[in-house]
Amino acid sequence: MTKGYFLSVEGNEGAGKSTALSMAAEHLTGRGIEVVMSREPGGIAIAEQIRSIILDKDNTAMDARTEALLYAASRRQHFVEKIVPTLESGRTILCDRFIDSSLAYQGYARGIGIEEILAINQFAIEDTFPDLTLFLDVDPELGLARINANKNREINRLDLEALGFHQRVREGYLKIAARFPERIVRIDANRSVEEVLESMKQALDAFLARKSRVAKHSFGG
Amino acid sequence: MTKGYFLSVEGNEGAGKSTALSMAAEHLTGRGIEVVMSREPGGIAIAEQIRSIILDKDNTAMDARTEALLYAASRRQHFVEKIVPTLESGRTILCDRFIDSSLAYQGYARGIGIEEILAINQFAIEDTFPDLTLFLDVDPELGLARINANKNREINRLDLEALGFHQRVREGYLKIAARFPERIVRIDANRSVEEVLESMKQALDAFLARKSRVAKHSFGG
Repeated sequence: MTKGYFLSVEGNEGAGKSTALSMAAEHLTGRGIEVVMSREPGGIAIAEQIRSIILDKDNTAMDARTEALLYAASRRQHFVEKIVPTLESGRTILCDRFIDSSLAYQGYARGIGIEEILAINQFAIEDTFPDLTLFLDVDPELGLARINANKNREINRLDLEALGFHQRVREGYLKIAARFPERIVRIDANRSVEEVLESMKQALDAFLARKSRVAKHSFGG
Repeated sequence: MTKGYFLSVEGNEGAGKSTALSMAAEHLTGRGIEVVMSREPGGIAIAEQIRSIILDKDNTAMDARTEALLYAASRRQHFVEKIVPTLESGRTILCDRFIDSSLAYQGYARGIGIEEILAINQFAIEDTFPDLTLFLDVDPELGLARINANKNREINRLDLEALGFHQRVREGYLKIAARFPERIVRIDANRSVEEVLESMKQALDAFLARKSRVAKHSFGG
């Protein structure tokens, strides 16, 4: 049986990831591909237990590297129990955030280092990177404005601190996209929803066409 | 203030680690060194929470790499909250097992790979290896015999399976000792308690003498 494709969608805050994920699933289904959507910890009991330690508000003493190792552990279990069996059953996984979120948020924005976070995550995923990653790239000011649109208030000091952080997250994503140019497709998410979705469809179709050519080539066609 | 020394004691089952640790602490105290004994997770709340996930008997689905990442996370937190502050206060840490246990048990005996386990643990400890590691090396058959001495029964099939595993643990330790010859001192623990303790004292004194020469040299003496 042919293995399914491993796809992930990444993006900074307010990039429109949720809408993009639904559209991508619908588009792939329309192309005859059986899609399973997931996001970490994905209902995997051990991964959920690990996340509950990370998110416990009493754990104020948690070191950034402890947190990074816990995220990698949670990722590993979700990967082993859900992603791998899904791919091996021939279905396609569409994952809401994956390794690149750790690289951008913890590796770059929190300052641990992209290569350091990459090393522990390569241990976790044994070099099974997504086949394709769609990176929705929004200007952090626009992204935060979108998120705050319903709150009906001026931007305050906390928002500005958040802005600095989200600018670093975006810089991180750009560095990672440059590090993995074959895998990561950057999509300009500063445009209208329709334009963003159109670019995503094109990226997905280009990926499928490439895979189809590779498959034909493998069979000598 | 001068930093304290970071010492660890390692060994396979039945090597006599507990007696050796007490003796080492006593010997160092007699040399005017303030010793703090610890073992992971060392009463550190976050490290204890992580260990409780590893040890939970219901977590039968836990993957070996998830477990390895959780051990590294627990180690990180114990390291940050206990080992580093103790060393910085000028006291010496004497740790009952540290990174080499993960390398021997998970890296080698469980087959993940010493270099792979080393990578995630170097992330955890940021290359702060112990200054000295005493490796109590006992023949696994003798070690298991010592442990079973009170049980008053023949060796059974399960013991033999255990024997194979403990032989791999010992092989792992020997490889690690060869990988870090400057740091790890192998002590033949097949001998009598008195002989083993005498070798440990000699190793500790040789370490202190070396450090003392380095300190004199640093001050131009």
